[in-house]
Amino acid sequence: MEQQTAAPEAGAPSDLASQVGVERLFAPESVAVVGASEQGLGHMVFANLLRDFPGTLYPVNPRRPEVLGVKAYPTVDDLPEAVDMAVILVPALQVPDIVERCAARGIGGALVLAAGFAEAGPEGKAAQERMTNLARTSAFPIIGPNCNGFMNGYRTTLATFAIPPTSDRPTPGPIALISQSGGFGAYIMEKAVVGGLQVGWYLSTGNEADMNVARSLAYLIERPEVKVVLSFFEAIRSPEVFLQVVSRAAELGKPIMAVKAGRTSEGARAAVSHTASIAGSSEVYDAVCRQYGLLQAGSVEEMVDFGLAFQTGRRMSGRRVGVLTASGGAGALMADAAEMAGLTVPPLPQPDQDKLAALMPSFASAANPVDHTGAFNPANFEPVLDGLTQSSGVDAVLPLVWVIRDAEADAVKRIYAATDKPMAVAVTIAAPVLAEGGIPTYSDPARAVRALGALARHSAMLRAHERAPVPAPDPDRVSRVRQLLAKDGPRPFVLESVAKQVLAEYGVPVSRETVVGSAAEAAAAAEQIGGRVALKLLSYRLPHKSDSGALRLGLSGEAAVRGGYEDMVRDISAAFPGIEIEGVLVQEMVPASVEISCGLQRDPVFGPMVAVGLGGTLIEIVGGAVLLRAPFTHRQAREAVDLICDRRLGRASRGLSQAQAEIIAGVLTGVGALALELLEVESVDINPIRVDGDVIRAVDALIVVAGGPAGAADAVAAGAAST
Amino acid sequence: MEQQTAAPEAGAPSDLASQVGVERLFAPESVAVVGASEQGLGHMVFANLLRDFPGTLYPVNPRRPEVLGVKAYPTVDDLPEAVDMAVILVPALQVPDIVERCAARGIGGALVLAAGFAEAGPEGKAAQERMTNLARTSAFPIIGPNCNGFMNGYRTTLATFAIPPTSDRPTPGPIALISQSGGFGAYIMEKAVVGGLQVGWYLSTGNEADMNVARSLAYLIERPEVKVVLSFFEAIRSPEVFLQVVSRAAELGKPIMAVKAGRTSEGARAAVSHTASIAGSSEVYDAVCRQYGLLQAGSVEEMVDFGLAFQTGRRMSGRRVGVLTASGGAGALMADAAEMAGLTVPPLPQPDQDKLAALMPSFASAANPVDHTGAFNPANFEPVLDGLTQSSGVDAVLPLVWVIRDAEADAVKRIYAATDKPMAVAVTIAAPVLAEGGIPTYSDPARAVRALGALARHSAMLRAHERAPVPAPDPDRVSRVRQLLAKDGPRPFVLESVAKQVLAEYGVPVSRETVVGSAAEAAAAAEQIGGRVALKLLSYRLPHKSDSGALRLGLSGEAAVRGGYEDMVRDISAAFPGIEIEGVLVQEMVPASVEISCGLQRDPVFGPMVAVGLGGTLIEIVGGAVLLRAPFTHRQAREAVDLICDRRLGRASRGLSQAQAEIIAGVLTGVGALALELLEVESVDINPIRVDGDVIRAVDALIVVAGGPAGAADAVAAGAAST
Repeated sequence: MEQQTAAPEAGAPSDLASQVGVERLFAPESVAVVGASEQGLGHMVFANLLRDFPGTLYPVNPRRPEVLGVKAYPTVDDLPEAVDMAVILVPALQVPDIVERCAARGIGGALVLAAGFAEAGPEGKAAQERMTNLARTSAFPIIGPNCNGFMNGYRTTLATFAIPPTSDRPTPGPIALISQSGGFGAYIMEKAVVGGLQVGWYLSTGNEADMNVARSLAYLIERPEVKVVLSFFEAIRSPEVFLQVVSRAAELGKPIMAVKAGRTSEGARAAVSHTASIAGSSEVYDAVCRQYGLLQAGSVEEMVDFGLAFQTGRRMSGRRVGVLTASGGAGALMADAAEMAGLTVPPLPQPDQDKLAALMPSFASAANPVDHTGAFNPANFEPVLDGLTQSSGVDAVLPLVWVIRDAEADAVKRIYAATDKPMAVAVTIAAPVLAEGGIPTYSDPARAVRALGALARHSAMLRAHERAPVPAPDPDRVSRVRQLLAKDGPRPFVLESVAKQVLAEYGVPVSRETVVGSAAEAAAAAEQIGGRVALKLLSYRLPHKSDSGALRLGLSGEAAVRGGYEDMVRDISAAFPGIEIEGVLVQEMVPASVEISCGLQRDPVFGPMVAVGLGGTLIEIVGGAVLLRAPFTHRQAREAVDLICDRRLGRASRGLSQAQAEIIAGVLTGVGALALELLEVESVDINPIRVDGDVIRAVDALIVVAGGPAGAADAVAAGAAST
Repeated sequence: MEQQTAAPEAGAPSDLASQVGVERLFAPESVAVVGASEQGLGHMVFANLLRDFPGTLYPVNPRRPEVLGVKAYPTVDDLPEAVDMAVILVPALQVPDIVERCAARGIGGALVLAAGFAEAGPEGKAAQERMTNLARTSAFPIIGPNCNGFMNGYRTTLATFAIPPTSDRPTPGPIALISQSGGFGAYIMEKAVVGGLQVGWYLSTGNEADMNVARSLAYLIERPEVKVVLSFFEAIRSPEVFLQVVSRAAELGKPIMAVKAGRTSEGARAAVSHTASIAGSSEVYDAVCRQYGLLQAGSVEEMVDFGLAFQTGRRMSGRRVGVLTASGGAGALMADAAEMAGLTVPPLPQPDQDKLAALMPSFASAANPVDHTGAFNPANFEPVLDGLTQSSGVDAVLPLVWVIRDAEADAVKRIYAATDKPMAVAVTIAAPVLAEGGIPTYSDPARAVRALGALARHSAMLRAHERAPVPAPDPDRVSRVRQLLAKDGPRPFVLESVAKQVLAEYGVPVSRETVVGSAAEAAAAAEQIGGRVALKLLSYRLPHKSDSGALRLGLSGEAAVRGGYEDMVRDISAAFPGIEIEGVLVQEMVPASVEISCGLQRDPVFGPMVAVGLGGTLIEIVGGAVLLRAPFTHRQAREAVDLICDRRLGRASRGLSQAQAEIIAGVLTGVGALALELLEVESVDINPIRVDGDVIRAVDALIVVAGGPAGAADAVAAGAAST
């Protein structure tokens, strides 16, 4: 519960971007390296800074008068100025004192590279907590500990040992790379640079005593030189900030790609033991990525592949790819890969086909995939590729050219320069001319296709993106509902009759029903409701009525209702000796052509998640609910409902009408509002919502509230699991 | 229907391996190159053969006395001997005559490299058909046309232009590569060789006038030097041979990997227009791969990755991987990848953990993934990796070593040589020492993990593999059933009452039921059946009774049954004027806790496919039936039933008991026997089979038979689609 009750760690995106002191730390004019030396990491980091840091650099080392020819100072207190950043490389247990002195001295912030903190046992954990407290109370930003630093390539600031001082610096470009893990981050950077990415920023956040992935992203995403972000992380700390940043990036049109470890049970076990933080549910994470616009990549290699396409700045306006190949088989394989990546390879408009056909052998195919065959005249390569690129029928072009000849590479370069459509070239061995032309190339055609697929997916996410405002709370409603919830004192769950009243306050249509205390009252209530009714026995011992016989269905007429009431009360009293019966609910019977379910769960990382799925017993068999994090817009709710219909009901030709789908979307919106207003509600399970024509009613609902007897929510959940 | 009625194109695997003349063609002692020249393809192929073909080589060229210094002959008739193979490079329309002369001359077979046949229009198609007929009638094997030839690396026979004569020949090794597409095949070989595969055989089959992928595989898989096969194809011709070969490869323990184009709708459109053959259903193909043991790869790159692991000859005995890394984050990511690849990364046995922990910093993790952290003493790399490798808790080892140092690479090589466990090393930049040691290396950890996953998957497939004998037909049963089917003459489908009798002959338990012709008979039949009954009106106009009101459920007592009978007959007669009513089925009502469905469809490529899935209306919503090709064993049937239960019912805690699953498996086996005995049955749809305790009954069934009125089966299918 901590996540969603805690105040966000930063406010609106503009606030995020100007986090106190962060700018000074990430773009320092002066740097002190505490632990600078002529060997080991102390050497690597100092030498990296020394080679082209444009500001002032001070080694701090009590045992040396100078380091690499630069005058050294014994302690930070001896420095001639309060530097913008102190890089700290001394053993872990000395670090907190030094950090405190830095803060007291007015230094801008600290980059703590030392390991041996929370990951190394109780003593290290305590040292790290001291730093966390200092950072929070003194607005003194700290990066690390247990990280390998950062590189701000735009200011040639290499405060890192991720790059050996002897190797070339990456050419700064539009790519920012952020990795929670230092070691793996260095590996990703190596892969990225080898793969042709222009990395302008590198940052590892390590143990995240203060600055974490989310807060660092908040800074990076606002930098004008950063156009594309690659990220790797295991845990998401500051989830509120994280989601705001992802939304902000969508608004800026800057893709954030992510590889997250710990998505499977094997991975989560490894990640949790490593970061000592909650792995979270991968279903929730996937839903949140979709809702807020984060691009997931399946592996580091795939993320680098995607980065290559994104760093060109070109985007796909649609999903149509023009494929050019010398092999029909390869063309078919790429068409397969295209469909799997969410793209299409549609036949070209006939005039374009005619134009291409005239340039190719009679048995070539101009349809798309364009197959010029092996018998093709190489001189026609340029006009064919150019014709395909210029066709109004394609949004991007993918030539597969095996081992590319120089003339072909030159032709590709010319055509690429003359168009603004994205291109991905599949070649077995990279051609320097293509790299010079800034053209993304891939050694496997399927990878080229998936990279274009990522462009299309990103464009679609930008079009769909919208920020959902947090709805204004309704204090009167909250007070009415809290009275309802409090009436019976602390209980493991709320009686169905009360749950329905609570839901009705949030606009959820519920079954007509009355709580009665006698057979005579039941008969009278049934008479008033009309038609056939259900009787449900209300008791705090029976959260799940149908399992325990606390349910009688389809009764009509005074005799049947009275008889049903008496039978049920007698049976239940016998089956559960000493049971306290709170009353009997007399409820209208509601017809259904479709049953839907809607629920609320609070995720330990992302908080309030509203689910919609099929209802009744189908939910158990089919699963596959669609999840939305509250708040969400009505349009997002409607899309979730449509997804459920498409995925599951569509096949059965038993979908919802437009009007029905609107009403179900309204139910989601209501539950979302409840989730944000009533933080004490741990979970809601409305199942089923029966739908038939214009009759839509929640006929059963369970609400679990925090603060019941210890373990009560678990007991309710266990009961649910056993049904 | 053609596929499953045609006799197999070859018999038992041993016959397949000794296909007449194929050995002579693929391992020739003497070769004539018709169209050998000093430029173009005629030069490339002749030069390739000339450089190291160990047998006798003859250029055939009417316009030159010699080619590249070798005496040339004007025509094949002028050759001094009947060579083992004629390679033919002349224009398409001249080829059939030459092929005929080759066959007449006693030449062993032909490799036709020319294009311009079936892919190029009616004239080319006719030329290709002439070759097909010649090959079949004269036992004269032909490879191609429209291919780029083959390389038998063990006999330095390069009858191909897939490799330029100036480039190095691949080092022959255990890998055979077969590609339907020549151009793409050359690309795959390039990728394979660059990727480190030792390719001993290369073959492209092109238009497959005679030799196709299946028949070529039949030859290759029996070669002792071939240990691993990579394949790429679009269409599967000779599916019977194909499946026998796949089974045979499983028996030999040789993995066949395949990338198939045309698996999606986009890809199928491209493939069908290219090969002019049926793409087939990807669900059926996937099922057949699983059943017979073909390893699918998702892309060419993945197939090469897998090949690298397989060519070592090492196999995984279990699914447990030991991961070694310097980054907890990378370890978690690899554990994720492992789970997705069907592997586990289990904690090591405690004594092994203790041993490793003693060699690493206190905050390292020895559990698995083993994370030695960045603070690790490099001198301990070898003992730590060795300890992990030798642990009884792992079946394979995966070190992730970023940029590997020489000392580390040497250590890996020593440890690899001392174990027989598979290893996959993830390094950003390949180390020559590792390649020398024959150790598979991958530039991305996820790819290394997936390659080990392929080893584990293959071992599991070998363990599960079994050949299902074709059951001996039961002539008496066939004759009884054919009498039943013929009784009413040619009809679009079989009446439910007859379908049940047919199914009962194949051991399918069916509902107790009687066909009656009057209300009085109905009442008497209901009386005899006892309990509540259903009435179903039988008419050839109503294949789907529930849609048309030809169904009354849950009747009991003489009055209700008589009334139901009369109402139904009156209503249907009114709704369908002139309808011929064949009778009314009086059927017991069968309870159900689970409903299952079972069906037979004939796939245009693979023939008789038996499906099992959830029944009732769930089948429409849930989909996801499991498919088996007939014949199959009872164990395979049982596994299919268990899969359905695991996948769908398991979640609902409403699985089948062991005894129930056995009976359902028996239903599958019965339908499989029917599929093989009654080739005129086009489809069977038993839905639902109701299951409750020890009562299991097929309560509805539809059988469609070939030879009904034209379009009848389509009409039945259309009816089904509209329900």
